[in-house]
Amino acid sequence: MRRVYFTPGPSALYYTADHHIKYAIKHGITSISHRSKTFQDIFKEAESNLKILLALPDNYQLVFTNSATEIWEKMTDAFISNQSLHMVNGAFSKKFYTVAKNLGKKANIIESPWGELPDFNIDNKSYDLIGVTHNETSTGVKTPLKSIYSLRKSNPEALIAIDAVSSLPVLNLDYTKVDTVYASVQKAFGLPAGLGVWLVNDRAEEKALKMKEDGLLRDTFHNVLSLIDQARKYQTPSTPNILGIYLFSQVVKDMIDRGLKQIRNDSVYKSAIMYNMLDQHDILQPFVNDKSLRSETIIVVDSGSRTKDLINFLSDYKMEVGNGYGKMKDKQVRIANFPTHSKEQFELLVDLIDKFE
Amino acid sequence: MRRVYFTPGPSALYYTADHHIKYAIKHGITSISHRSKTFQDIFKEAESNLKILLALPDNYQLVFTNSATEIWEKMTDAFISNQSLHMVNGAFSKKFYTVAKNLGKKANIIESPWGELPDFNIDNKSYDLIGVTHNETSTGVKTPLKSIYSLRKSNPEALIAIDAVSSLPVLNLDYTKVDTVYASVQKAFGLPAGLGVWLVNDRAEEKALKMKEDGLLRDTFHNVLSLIDQARKYQTPSTPNILGIYLFSQVVKDMIDRGLKQIRNDSVYKSAIMYNMLDQHDILQPFVNDKSLRSETIIVVDSGSRTKDLINFLSDYKMEVGNGYGKMKDKQVRIANFPTHSKEQFELLVDLIDKFE
Repeated sequence: MRRVYFTPGPSALYYTADHHIKYAIKHGITSISHRSKTFQDIFKEAESNLKILLALPDNYQLVFTNSATEIWEKMTDAFISNQSLHMVNGAFSKKFYTVAKNLGKKANIIESPWGELPDFNIDNKSYDLIGVTHNETSTGVKTPLKSIYSLRKSNPEALIAIDAVSSLPVLNLDYTKVDTVYASVQKAFGLPAGLGVWLVNDRAEEKALKMKEDGLLRDTFHNVLSLIDQARKYQTPSTPNILGIYLFSQVVKDMIDRGLKQIRNDSVYKSAIMYNMLDQHDILQPFVNDKSLRSETIIVVDSGSRTKDLINFLSDYKMEVGNGYGKMKDKQVRIANFPTHSKEQFELLVDLIDKFE
Repeated sequence: MRRVYFTPGPSALYYTADHHIKYAIKHGITSISHRSKTFQDIFKEAESNLKILLALPDNYQLVFTNSATEIWEKMTDAFISNQSLHMVNGAFSKKFYTVAKNLGKKANIIESPWGELPDFNIDNKSYDLIGVTHNETSTGVKTPLKSIYSLRKSNPEALIAIDAVSSLPVLNLDYTKVDTVYASVQKAFGLPAGLGVWLVNDRAEEKALKMKEDGLLRDTFHNVLSLIDQARKYQTPSTPNILGIYLFSQVVKDMIDRGLKQIRNDSVYKSAIMYNMLDQHDILQPFVNDKSLRSETIIVVDSGSRTKDLINFLSDYKMEVGNGYGKMKDKQVRIANFPTHSKEQFELLVDLIDKFE
């Protein structure tokens, strides 16, 4: 048996990715020009497949970046003219706040302790952008969709930016109630790292155009407007990660064939058996107390002084889980539950952890 | 026979890359954490191998980006406080000038017609940075190294930035006479696109530190200083293209084993037989007249109205060459002569083009 990576990202490759990589190499996909019709067809298929998979409204444009991290910088440049608000409950939601602040914007913060949710009752109505992390990879907290949807009412003018880095495409989002959504492919898409997926709606594009008009948007090769202009022609400003985009198009197609409803049901089942077992474990427990906030895709376990033992115990069975993030590094393990992780693999993992003593 | 890509980039994969990709997939290299010791070891090996291959001085730091294109923006932000000079003789040298200008710097230009070389006699001594494209991918002009080396004398204070996108590691550069050198891996390194290789010496780093002190450097996650800080720990600010960095480390190792001297000799031989044939061809001719300016790695051919015929003729033999760049799209073909292209493949290509009528 090959080693199975339940690490929170990079994680195991989607189970069909291996086949697609071999096909790509055999057929010279890595050697084609990024200005060729062949590349445009790949980009077009990637977009078309993703729109089908997510039932994405027509007013959204897909652009590719190299990581989700750089999207924070591009959003700060293009969408924040006055001030932003960041709902912070972990390391990654905080990083977007830090990026905005470091780039000279008036960035505001509503923060909760790790493992909990910030207060979504917002009284200030003057934000350009509100950043929400749907699934905080450092803590395993999932923001309920109704909290996300409430933002449109409390801040009708603001762009709602959703970090879905470790939950896209598993989350079942109503894209009409938000404006921009972004993810990395090395998590729930099960692909090699090195590609960011960024969905931008017309409201967000208009904001960037307004900022450009006002001379507030840096005129770089890679800002959101140049990315969109190129993407409309199924192109990119620079030579992109062609292999990554090809693999993305194919794995998204495989997910369409499997059915996202099925993938979501499996995700609920796998996380449920894990949390149920953890709730009854002698030594371990779920980090997130509030059951309505427990992430399906990133399960964080309080393992305290036994963290290293647990990781090694599972590794002996060729199962790799991640350690905690940042300050929780030595006190927690993080377990990814992505579409590539089969029910059988997950049942085995749950049984093993159940036996850990 | 598999199709052979002599396209100027993306191009054919280095002949060992296929093997390394399969190894990486089989051994879960794409699933490892970019914060793990395993990743640090890969980064460390990549740096160590490149330093050996290029005989790189100790005062240079290797950092990875996602493309060479984005390095123009990062250099503009970090190295140009007052004004820059750009030696322009084609599309890519001009793009760096455009980037600097668009980002609000006082960017100056010395320009020549395509196929020729700008005048390297510079009388102004107040530039922060002089940008030179060693091998202009759009025109097939190679800047003689002695012209590059003359810049240090004429502008002792300036940073000398060398675009070696389509010539690294084939060019035999004295790194003590320049300050920063950058390339893309999908050209002469023969790797899948999606990785930029950036060499930065201590003078360039000091300039960036000075700009930071003076509040002139944007405090992004991905500026040259944060890239260097992370690289010193064999890390990256974002989740990088891990597969790309692994493949880079292995292919550079293979190039060390083969010997860069051998690779360079082969490059000279292959370009010589191509140019010799072209000089005597009935229909075709080399675009670059001055033999001392003819690139070894990108050979540009004036094919006029027969461009499409030539491309199709070669394609029937499973040999793919590129069309001309930009305004020369339909009038020229471009042929890459990279380390992965064997003497035998090149002899076959020369014979075929010789027979084209």
